[in-house]
Amino acid sequence: MSEVASPVSTEALSRFVAQALVSEGVPEDDATKVSGLMVEADIFGYGTHGVFRLRQYLARLRGGGCNQRAQIKIACETAATAVIDGDNGLGHLAMSAARDLAMVKASEAGIGWVGVRRGNHAGPLALYVRPQAEAGMIGMAAAVGSANHVPPFGGTDLLLGTNPIAISAPSGGPDPFVLDMATTVAAMGKIKVLAQQGAAMPEGWMVGRDGEPLTDPTRRSEGFMLPIGGPKGFGLSVAIGLLAGVLNGAAFGSDVVDFTSDTSSETNTGQFVMALNVAAFGMGDRFAETAKRVFDEMRASAPLPGHEPVRMPGEGKGAAAAERRRIGLALNPALRRDLEALAQEQGIEAPFGPPARS
Amino acid sequence: MSEVASPVSTEALSRFVAQALVSEGVPEDDATKVSGLMVEADIFGYGTHGVFRLRQYLARLRGGGCNQRAQIKIACETAATAVIDGDNGLGHLAMSAARDLAMVKASEAGIGWVGVRRGNHAGPLALYVRPQAEAGMIGMAAAVGSANHVPPFGGTDLLLGTNPIAISAPSGGPDPFVLDMATTVAAMGKIKVLAQQGAAMPEGWMVGRDGEPLTDPTRRSEGFMLPIGGPKGFGLSVAIGLLAGVLNGAAFGSDVVDFTSDTSSETNTGQFVMALNVAAFGMGDRFAETAKRVFDEMRASAPLPGHEPVRMPGEGKGAAAAERRRIGLALNPALRRDLEALAQEQGIEAPFGPPARS
Repeated sequence: MSEVASPVSTEALSRFVAQALVSEGVPEDDATKVSGLMVEADIFGYGTHGVFRLRQYLARLRGGGCNQRAQIKIACETAATAVIDGDNGLGHLAMSAARDLAMVKASEAGIGWVGVRRGNHAGPLALYVRPQAEAGMIGMAAAVGSANHVPPFGGTDLLLGTNPIAISAPSGGPDPFVLDMATTVAAMGKIKVLAQQGAAMPEGWMVGRDGEPLTDPTRRSEGFMLPIGGPKGFGLSVAIGLLAGVLNGAAFGSDVVDFTSDTSSETNTGQFVMALNVAAFGMGDRFAETAKRVFDEMRASAPLPGHEPVRMPGEGKGAAAAERRRIGLALNPALRRDLEALAQEQGIEAPFGPPARS
Repeated sequence: MSEVASPVSTEALSRFVAQALVSEGVPEDDATKVSGLMVEADIFGYGTHGVFRLRQYLARLRGGGCNQRAQIKIACETAATAVIDGDNGLGHLAMSAARDLAMVKASEAGIGWVGVRRGNHAGPLALYVRPQAEAGMIGMAAAVGSANHVPPFGGTDLLLGTNPIAISAPSGGPDPFVLDMATTVAAMGKIKVLAQQGAAMPEGWMVGRDGEPLTDPTRRSEGFMLPIGGPKGFGLSVAIGLLAGVLNGAAFGSDVVDFTSDTSSETNTGQFVMALNVAAFGMGDRFAETAKRVFDEMRASAPLPGHEPVRMPGEGKGAAAAERRRIGLALNPALRRDLEALAQEQGIEAPFGPPARS
């Protein structure tokens, strides 16, 4: 029996996600904003951080771990910095507010650096840096991961998350430069997708407590995720914990709440978003022109034996997104089944009919 | 024949380095400032980026590639940002000015982000972030590497340097958090030291054009340095090139000058230094207290089999530095010989007598 998954329209999926959030008490406006960002994550190819997370978010709204009716506010502020208090609402609300505020501050003060406390999981960081690049600015964002899967380098206690960082910049090409990466070799989202698909992890993603490679993604709780570059990735991850967590009065270390297994506790997730105004550095269009010259040089580099031609981070995302907006999203069968089940549980209509079976 | 290397006093070494710079036309004040920072690099254990680089700097001063009498100036400025024009002088001058300016801006505007154009190699980035942490701020710095040793991920043209990044923060302990890392698996400085010592590199540091591991450090020009985490380290390195190079109107990509092989061309090295004022985020002493709590948790984590107890980036640096200031620096024999030769070439007195031989 194979399933023929016809693509689902992004509008229908977005309406469905918003309805699901409303069904757990989120006001219509907030639900529409969050569902738009969740579907945008899928549109831009960040499938592990998009609609795939809906079940988790609903569980936390229902369990009391996430505030349905959050009132986001600015906790403190200078001309170039701020801290946003997310009031324990859906993470997308605080992070999109932080991004917008950072861009306003950057256009006025040259730079805007806005931290978030009392936030929640907010999807892929790319959502909070790509708009800077599209506006001709440089963007940066980072987050304390929403669960501790990583020990300090050489240790065995889980005290770090995958602590991702994203950086964007205009590139003079069809796509801005957009890097969005976990500081671990693999992202937990990718590991969960492999588990959902019944596939194995490559060696090098995780080790067990014995130090031996761990490749079964369903056994992920028994082992440790590995940082990139050993002590370097560990150091970067700690730095992100300090900048995104401690600096904002948000969780880091043992007070990080596992947002999957615990649906009732406030996570106090910490993040930050930065925007740098290229014009304040005396560079107008010259920034994008120079970036394009260097990127063209890199793309023209002859591939190493066995490698594809060089691709820059973010390259091809715009065209793929346009195509997905046009023809819809091809959700994987497991996610499709999960959304169908969710529709029943929440008493709303799925954004697609039952899968055709052959 | 073995050499007994008695430690050299840091004051004597600093005077020697300053004299050597003066002998190539650098004004006394600038020479004293740069020599102080170069010796401080050795004092804090960054031996590959300290006095070891003196011969290179002298060659570039002599060859016309570096301006002896640089007039550093602020090229553009907002309340929170600036670009410093290093006037192609010794890199330590522009970078220490950038660091100081970033800290002033951070204390006034919450954040200071200062880029450098027309700089030069400035030693370890730690010199430009540790003072922020000692003043209760968070520091960050990055640089476009002073030679291209790295191809874009999957490519074969050398278009990237080791593009290092450093981050610091108060930790509530004897040492601040200080991370100073190349975005490559190994730093070129370490590879050069191995070459000087006649030792081999571990596999994984470099690959040859055939994609096979390269372990002979004297053959480094035949191969490629590898970024940490493959495409992730590549992405980080490009982001640093954009932030430290392109944003400041400095070199990136094919216009990076190899500062070792070319002693006559201006390098237009780009860097940046950031300072974040913890107080602007509503955190006073709470920042260091929370960092200490998390760091203590990490240090208390039972080591993985075969590992040392967990160490935080920067841990132990202060005590080691105090000891080196007290008893002097134990320079390795190759560097000692090189400094003796330099003393003769420059017509100045070496900071130590000839090595005792047994």
